[in-house]
Amino acid sequence: MKAILIISDGLGGRPTDVDGRTCLEAAKTPHLDSLATRGALGLVDPIGPGIRPGSDTAHLSLLGYDPFTLYTGRGVFECLGIGLDVRTGDICFRANFATVEARGTDFVVIDRRAGRIESGQDELAGALNGIRLETVPGVSLEFRASTQHRGALLFRGEGLSRHVTENDPHEAGKPALRFEAQPGHEDEPARRTAEALNEFVARSHEVLRDHPVNRRRIEDGKPPANFVLARGAADCPDIPSIESIYGVRGAVIAGGALYRGVALACGMTVIDVPGATGGLDTDLGAKAQAAIEALDEFDYAFVHVKGTDNAGHDRNAAAKAGFIERIDAELIGPLAERLDGVATHLAFTGDHTTPIDYGDHTVEPVPVLYAGPNVRTDDTTSFGEREAGRGGLGRFSGRVLPILLGYNNWAPKFGS
Amino acid sequence: MKAILIISDGLGGRPTDVDGRTCLEAAKTPHLDSLATRGALGLVDPIGPGIRPGSDTAHLSLLGYDPFTLYTGRGVFECLGIGLDVRTGDICFRANFATVEARGTDFVVIDRRAGRIESGQDELAGALNGIRLETVPGVSLEFRASTQHRGALLFRGEGLSRHVTENDPHEAGKPALRFEAQPGHEDEPARRTAEALNEFVARSHEVLRDHPVNRRRIEDGKPPANFVLARGAADCPDIPSIESIYGVRGAVIAGGALYRGVALACGMTVIDVPGATGGLDTDLGAKAQAAIEALDEFDYAFVHVKGTDNAGHDRNAAAKAGFIERIDAELIGPLAERLDGVATHLAFTGDHTTPIDYGDHTVEPVPVLYAGPNVRTDDTTSFGEREAGRGGLGRFSGRVLPILLGYNNWAPKFGS
Repeated sequence: MKAILIISDGLGGRPTDVDGRTCLEAAKTPHLDSLATRGALGLVDPIGPGIRPGSDTAHLSLLGYDPFTLYTGRGVFECLGIGLDVRTGDICFRANFATVEARGTDFVVIDRRAGRIESGQDELAGALNGIRLETVPGVSLEFRASTQHRGALLFRGEGLSRHVTENDPHEAGKPALRFEAQPGHEDEPARRTAEALNEFVARSHEVLRDHPVNRRRIEDGKPPANFVLARGAADCPDIPSIESIYGVRGAVIAGGALYRGVALACGMTVIDVPGATGGLDTDLGAKAQAAIEALDEFDYAFVHVKGTDNAGHDRNAAAKAGFIERIDAELIGPLAERLDGVATHLAFTGDHTTPIDYGDHTVEPVPVLYAGPNVRTDDTTSFGEREAGRGGLGRFSGRVLPILLGYNNWAPKFGS
Repeated sequence: MKAILIISDGLGGRPTDVDGRTCLEAAKTPHLDSLATRGALGLVDPIGPGIRPGSDTAHLSLLGYDPFTLYTGRGVFECLGIGLDVRTGDICFRANFATVEARGTDFVVIDRRAGRIESGQDELAGALNGIRLETVPGVSLEFRASTQHRGALLFRGEGLSRHVTENDPHEAGKPALRFEAQPGHEDEPARRTAEALNEFVARSHEVLRDHPVNRRRIEDGKPPANFVLARGAADCPDIPSIESIYGVRGAVIAGGALYRGVALACGMTVIDVPGATGGLDTDLGAKAQAAIEALDEFDYAFVHVKGTDNAGHDRNAAAKAGFIERIDAELIGPLAERLDGVATHLAFTGDHTTPIDYGDHTVEPVPVLYAGPNVRTDDTTSFGEREAGRGGLGRFSGRVLPILLGYNNWAPKFGS
């Protein structure tokens, strides 16, 4: 038996999306409707009822983990997802290039995203990785660039702490903040980590300001990428792998570094798919094909698509509904065919609701669909929020992957 | 007011059981259908969504306790259920007679069940209870036989630990394993307990091999019961009684030692019913009659039936559906009459799903039924998994007994 989990980021909506319907309800989704007819629906609170999920915490919960005990911050998943070798004790950050102006000891932020820089980031990262910290000996660091201004930063050394504040003022025209120990955590490791970070960002300006990449940017009238903002400090949580719990091996297909990172932290293997961008322009057909091929080698495949959330954050109902129609045609269609061949269970859901009128995550539960030979069918005939509200699976919290693996008889028994 | 809880072990099924229906859906259950019509249905995850329950942990959870904090192992419930006096600090085991051949210092297991021995077990137990351990002074022990080769073993003494491995190799032809401290628990109490167990099983062979019962078995060409295998080490969890929480007294009617043991651990009183075998041949009418009589003295009665699970483990759909029909006619029928007399609430559910195609517990939730004067009815008209999926009680986790007692206004207020 095989299993397929598909999570569409920010899938859920509100009746304010499109004339009294959600984007999902408004979209034409014949393949999902067919799966609803032959399977069963329910509502899932990604973390719990009335808890507004982040994407990282929601994914941990949907994959079967308790984010309240395991989650330390987003940085570790960004570092993992971007390909850094994260070890116990390392402190990880989301980081990005910014444009600043040095005024006295302040770095005043001119552009938090360095003009959404599109080229030269790897060279700049190379300069950052040449920095050797002096005030805090024994701490090594690695910066890796990802898309545009985005990147990840890792600190390694004895006696570091994730309990540090960030330096992003979240507003242009303001000076970058100094890193400090978080209130309530003013111990030596936190002070030491903050000191190392303050030295690192000051030195980042030294090595970046006259870097050839930035000299060219200035000549071209573009803001130079001459500083690093860092946030989301996290250390590596001790997450038992899905294989160690359920005895099966999984592959993840995801464009976004965060989702690859969460899946890596849970022990999945990343399958790289050219054209999987983590955006609205992603190649869904290539992801479907890669998932089908991955199932030759792996027990289950986890496919993540991000476009629904992007469109929600952009408050673009037409883009969101259109992307859902593409998911149905280009991803669900090919994957659903799999159910007629090798015995396979399939689950489709979202990691949270991102309504058009709000443009950010909200607390409502999301619809979830299960189909396959062992699923007790219900009388739903289409896939949407309200249809799921009368589905035979009722309402439950998180754990969509363990339930899916359970249909395949891949669950450990608790007790005897 | 009175209350009746009926748990049918392994009640839940899958559409693969009988031509697209579960055994429960396929069975004719006019009494349960009538109760569904006058009551309300829901789905219950015995422990939680996507958690595959054991019978012991599921029962703790359905009775209102948190197995994640309370459960230490099955042995303690087996010892209690078999009638041993279990005290704080005692270490309990599931144990059984086996047939071994001594080769050097090894005991090679010839038959893990000693030919499913049917007579003489109490005499053999008497010989085991004469053993005085020498290597670990101060430890006393008690072995008690139950059905066939099965029994329970209790160790009492200062400084014992439940963190020991088992000696059952789970395969004939292999030597019995040596008891050891569990990895990660290699402390003095665990080492001492393992040493005591190793001496006990070696001595068990000494006192059993030439026992008159075994000499007769050998003459009759039967494998001798000349060794003890022990597993499921547990100490007595600190379980507050149901009476201490809800102020009411309950009786349990169950053939299987495990279920009597769980109920005893929760403070219920065991009612012995001749003919309650814990199997498919149990006298359901006698159990119904005993429950009705128990309600003269007790506030609530808990009736456990095991045949559904046995048939599921045997992958026998006809036997499971047939036993469900017997439950309906011989147990539910008489108990439901009670609802028309003294005001009574009744709950019926299972402790997990045991589908025919898999023959073991799976993660799916089970249907639950409540009926009685205070139950808000829904529009369900039959009792089954899919009908319960559209029931008015929705989907919830465990705590079926506290909800039942709540209908009788027997719940403590949390807060004021």
